[in-house]
Amino acid sequence: MFSGPEAAGKDSEIFTVNGILGESVTFPVNIQEPQQVKIIAWTSKTSVAYVTPGDSEMAPIVTVTHRNYYERIHALGPKYNLVISDLRMEDAGDYKADINIQVYPYTTTKRYNLQVYRKSWEDGGLLYDVLLVLVCQHFTEDFCISVH
Amino acid sequence: MFSGPEAAGKDSEIFTVNGILGESVTFPVNIQEPQQVKIIAWTSKTSVAYVTPGDSEMAPIVTVTHRNYYERIHALGPKYNLVISDLRMEDAGDYKADINIQVYPYTTTKRYNLQVYRKSWEDGGLLYDVLLVLVCQHFTEDFCISVH
Repeated sequence: MFSGPEAAGKDSEIFTVNGILGESVTFPVNIQEPQQVKIIAWTSKTSVAYVTPGDSEMAPIVTVTHRNYYERIHALGPKYNLVISDLRMEDAGDYKADINIQVYPYTTTKRYNLQVYRKSWEDGGLLYDVLLVLVCQHFTEDFCISVH
Repeated sequence: MFSGPEAAGKDSEIFTVNGILGESVTFPVNIQEPQQVKIIAWTSKTSVAYVTPGDSEMAPIVTVTHRNYYERIHALGPKYNLVISDLRMEDAGDYKADINIQVYPYTTTKRYNLQVYRKSWEDGGLLYDVLLVLVCQHFTEDFCISVH
């Protein structure tokens, strides 16, 4: 739901994506020329899904390639952002999107790190966790552990 | 071209696949019930390809998902074995096939390790290398390095 500050542009950059257990999270792909997209392959610890253009730019077609993600993934046109719903703790980790287009360089890779947080308490707890995530991005991990 | 002795059955087993630079190599998937296959997703350091049933069991459809493998992959029906041709040294490494079928357990994973050997000399050199690979599978790596 809320994402870190790194840009997801060049092959080497890693975009941090923060999600909450049981809710949905969006991986920003931000395709600029959707008419060039042939196929986007998503992988993590397992394969995840591939995404192809649908009849219209607004409705990409998703095929999930591992049971861990069945019925939990869709893609948003025209930018091809990927949504994982009903987040699980074991979804956390590194994700890669191999984006294949019609023209050179044919394949580019965007990298993400998904972090999944547990809601400590209703409402107030969620707000606290969200703020803590934002604070943690500006301090050391040790500081965040001691606050928690 | 020639493969190691480990079985490629359960999720944890790793099947060694040996190939020769510039030639083709086959990953044995050995699907027993091809009519159950929905999609097979191949991944390595990058995504590789996905394979779906074609009009007949004999002609699965391959869609390559990374430029590293463009025009170098096909699948053999009805067992869905995967062939990579024109092998490169950088193809070496771990490969996984997430096999999605219509029924429980829905997804099973087969793991492979591809080793790519350079032909030292024509004919005699190739035979020597092949024999050495087979010998190495029964001795320590140090032994093989000292023989080489």
